[in-house]
Amino acid sequence: MSYELRAIATVRCERTELIDDGWDAFESRLELAADIPSEALAGLESFSHVDVICVADRARDVPPDPWARHPRGNTEWPLVGIFAQRNKDRPNRLLLSTTEIVRVEERRVIVRGLDAVDGTPVLDIKPVFHWSGPRTAVRAPSWSDELGDTYF
Amino acid sequence: MSYELRAIATVRCERTELIDDGWDAFESRLELAADIPSEALAGLESFSHVDVICVADRARDVPPDPWARHPRGNTEWPLVGIFAQRNKDRPNRLLLSTTEIVRVEERRVIVRGLDAVDGTPVLDIKPVFHWSGPRTAVRAPSWSDELGDTYF
Repeated sequence: MSYELRAIATVRCERTELIDDGWDAFESRLELAADIPSEALAGLESFSHVDVICVADRARDVPPDPWARHPRGNTEWPLVGIFAQRNKDRPNRLLLSTTEIVRVEERRVIVRGLDAVDGTPVLDIKPVFHWSGPRTAVRAPSWSDELGDTYF
Repeated sequence: MSYELRAIATVRCERTELIDDGWDAFESRLELAADIPSEALAGLESFSHVDVICVADRARDVPPDPWARHPRGNTEWPLVGIFAQRNKDRPNRLLLSTTEIVRVEERRVIVRGLDAVDGTPVLDIKPVFHWSGPRTAVRAPSWSDELGDTYF
C-alpha cells in the first residue's frame, strides 16, 4: 500500500549542502504552507520542543541504496540494517528530529538543531510532551554514541 | 508538493477499536512487508527503543477536521492548533510513537506501548539513540500532562 502525503511547511535555513554534522550552528524556520491557516500553530508557544517529520527529498531511497550498511561507511562500526540506523538514505526518506523551539511567530516556528537542509518539505510538527519520549532507560550501542559526538 | 510513501511494515496487535487510552496493556508486532529483506532489521536488538512512524489510516484528515480544537474535546483544556497537539486526526494522519522493544525476531519487531491499532501501516522504524530525543529540559503545559495520566 502507498499513501500520498503533502508538505505542511518548508524548512528555511542557511545550510544548503548535504553535510552530516554541526546542526546546532544555526537556527531554522518551519514556514507553514500557504493553504494552512495560522491557527494550526496556536498554543505551540507553551512547549519547549517539537518532533519534526520531514521528507529528505534530496536523499536516496532504498533500493537503490542497500538494506544494511556500515553507518557513515565507517567499517569500524558494525554492518546494521536501515531500520537500526537513522541515516537519511532510507525507505520513504523520512527524517525525524526532536528540536528545541526558539520562538513561535505568525505562520512559522523558529527551531535550533534541526538536521534538515534549506527547502526540505515538512510533513508534520508535533509538540513534545513530558511522556512522549522513552519511558524506560535507553540502551544503545557505542557506535551510535560516537556518531553523536560531532552531530550537533 | 506531495510525496508517495509506502508501508514498510504492518502493526499486528489485539486492539482493533479506536480507543484513546491504555496502550501499555498489550504487545504489538511490527511485521515487515513482503518486499523488505530481513537484513533491514540487523542490529536492532542492540537498542532498547524505537521511534515508529505510522499512517493512522482510519483517522480523519484536516480538513474536514478543524485546524484548532480542545484536545479530546475537553473544554477545560485550551483551544490549541493541530501542530500543538498529537491527536491522530491531523494533516497527513502521521503517528509518531517512541516504544520499548520487547524483542526482535526474524522479520518482525515486538514492542510494548505502541498507540496504533491492528492493521496500521508503518512508514518507518528508527532506533532511539541516547541523543535523539530532547537535549534540554522539556517544558509542556499541564493539559498535556493530564492527558498522559490514562494514556498508557
